[in-house]
Amino acid sequence: MKIGILGAGQLARMMALAGIPMGFEFAFYDSATECCAAPLGQLFRGDFRDSEKLKAFAHSVDIITYEFENVPLETLELLPQGSVVYPSKKALEFTQDRLIEKELFKRLNIPTPDFIAIHGESELQDAAKKLGYPFVLKTRSGGYDGKGQMVLRHQSELHTALDLCNATPCIGEAWVDYEREVSLITVCSTTEVQNYDLNENVHRGGVLHWTKNRPNDDMLEQAILHSRALAHELNYRGVLTIEFFQCGKILLANEYAPRVHNSGHWTIEGAPCSQFENHLRAILDLPLGSTKSLGHSMMINCLGAMPEFNTLLGIQGLHYHNYSKTARKGRKVGHLTLQHQTEKELTHFSNQLNQTFKSNNEVQS
Amino acid sequence: MKIGILGAGQLARMMALAGIPMGFEFAFYDSATECCAAPLGQLFRGDFRDSEKLKAFAHSVDIITYEFENVPLETLELLPQGSVVYPSKKALEFTQDRLIEKELFKRLNIPTPDFIAIHGESELQDAAKKLGYPFVLKTRSGGYDGKGQMVLRHQSELHTALDLCNATPCIGEAWVDYEREVSLITVCSTTEVQNYDLNENVHRGGVLHWTKNRPNDDMLEQAILHSRALAHELNYRGVLTIEFFQCGKILLANEYAPRVHNSGHWTIEGAPCSQFENHLRAILDLPLGSTKSLGHSMMINCLGAMPEFNTLLGIQGLHYHNYSKTARKGRKVGHLTLQHQTEKELTHFSNQLNQTFKSNNEVQS
Repeated sequence: MKIGILGAGQLARMMALAGIPMGFEFAFYDSATECCAAPLGQLFRGDFRDSEKLKAFAHSVDIITYEFENVPLETLELLPQGSVVYPSKKALEFTQDRLIEKELFKRLNIPTPDFIAIHGESELQDAAKKLGYPFVLKTRSGGYDGKGQMVLRHQSELHTALDLCNATPCIGEAWVDYEREVSLITVCSTTEVQNYDLNENVHRGGVLHWTKNRPNDDMLEQAILHSRALAHELNYRGVLTIEFFQCGKILLANEYAPRVHNSGHWTIEGAPCSQFENHLRAILDLPLGSTKSLGHSMMINCLGAMPEFNTLLGIQGLHYHNYSKTARKGRKVGHLTLQHQTEKELTHFSNQLNQTFKSNNEVQS
Repeated sequence: MKIGILGAGQLARMMALAGIPMGFEFAFYDSATECCAAPLGQLFRGDFRDSEKLKAFAHSVDIITYEFENVPLETLELLPQGSVVYPSKKALEFTQDRLIEKELFKRLNIPTPDFIAIHGESELQDAAKKLGYPFVLKTRSGGYDGKGQMVLRHQSELHTALDLCNATPCIGEAWVDYEREVSLITVCSTTEVQNYDLNENVHRGGVLHWTKNRPNDDMLEQAILHSRALAHELNYRGVLTIEFFQCGKILLANEYAPRVHNSGHWTIEGAPCSQFENHLRAILDLPLGSTKSLGHSMMINCLGAMPEFNTLLGIQGLHYHNYSKTARKGRKVGHLTLQHQTEKELTHFSNQLNQTFKSNNEVQS
């Protein structure tokens, strides 16, 4: 069984690391020069609109999945007939346009912050009136990790947004004073739907900084309800992630990702079957593995460069993940997971980790 | 950091699968045509006495280890000066000759079955008198997985052993009516010594059939004592395995392996840090990871061909390891691990596994 992945970054790499022990082989398709998944399979390097290269890739594999939601829809159309792709094109389509995504949430009765389409100055002015200040301006497509968005706090700032909203279709979103950001990772085969614990996520500069799984969280049931509604609507196969803002006892859906997700990296050590293995099981319609967490985990992203590991490995329960990417300011180059049975232990060792970072003069992000 | 492994079979494969997430790269050296570790690094295919190829291999890596104890000592001598190899040549030397190995056990006060060197007919006759029937005749070197050994049950059978003991130096070992076979996996860096739970092993036809970890086993302390004595004597670095026969309350050492071991495969899911990752940490003298088991595990070897996985994956707590080797009668092609928190759960799901094997008409060995 050879699995093709569109994209050859760290998510593809971790899918391959989950699948190789089961006897699967992998091929990756990417346009980037540096592909950290490449050593784990066959790499097809090409433009995502190169139909010949895509054909060769598709013919070399039994099934295709993707590691990022910005795969052009055209790419899927260029694949030869009979290519099996999960999650479906529909799942990709809705998430590539923030307006359509939010309208879908609304249609499914999944609460989401107020939003309004913006293209050009007059719509920007209108949106400001309707949403009030501050509000968030985001490009409808192409943004990730905080890119393609800005917060507008006062009328006097509107002019700074003109270039963006004249050039490209945008969406204005009401500012949300949330208490927490959480996400839910669900996995769907044709016969099973499972989910991991709710994740609590903390972002810095628009990029995920750390995640903790929250066993038996009060908000889990609500998140499950929304996730199942979305999965059902999309006739979903694979791992599906939804990010929410929590305001009081309400979850507002921010966005969904039709793929394995950064907030689920803790499942490698923290669950019997990781999101990566379960994604593969789901797209192949194999029985799903258990998603029940083994305890309390915390995942910390490593941005820019990997921290020295000699001291870190001495911290009990620490797992060091280095994606073998070239260091570059702000780039996700790896992550650390702390995995313990109790919350108390986790807190103890995460304090130790913080001390280690401080004494090494390393900043976590 | 690039790690070189002599041997490119499943143990090398699993070491690479443990090391790649940490950012390590791998090179493998093997003479075999089919090398299941090869897709995970750079393969050097050559004779173990080809000094030029060995030199190229050694120059491509930062440190060298091995996955099997029959690496010719000459291979280590042919490596360029300055090559760093762990475990040491000494550890390899003692284990390559059953007579020297047993004499070492004796010198370290590690109980071992009575033994006697045999070369030729008259020594065979003498051994039979001294050891009594039945006794076990083994070649002093080169045997593994039950190969190169025979049980002699009566004087009338002695003639069947003549060819073997005339052709090659052998050892006679007293027959041991043991209650259990157990093994202990210890990991040593320069500053730390840790061990996993005692393993209970069941062999079939000389080949390991299944292993269970035994948390808090009565015999653990005795095994630790012997293992530490051996590790100390060998100034050991890496994972060290000793296999014992248990007779009443006494452990008799059968043999040791200076490497990761089949009876430790359960540690991939059953311990926070597997034997594979800990072996790498140890040879690199990094802090060791926790060896404390997460519960009750059972590992079953897959011989000949991998069982169908569609049904198997539905068994809770089952992990499927396929080494991607060509099927061949009796060949170790993979293993299954059942991992549960309690012994009761493990028993329940291992019964389910047995039923599945039966209904599939598959034999486990």
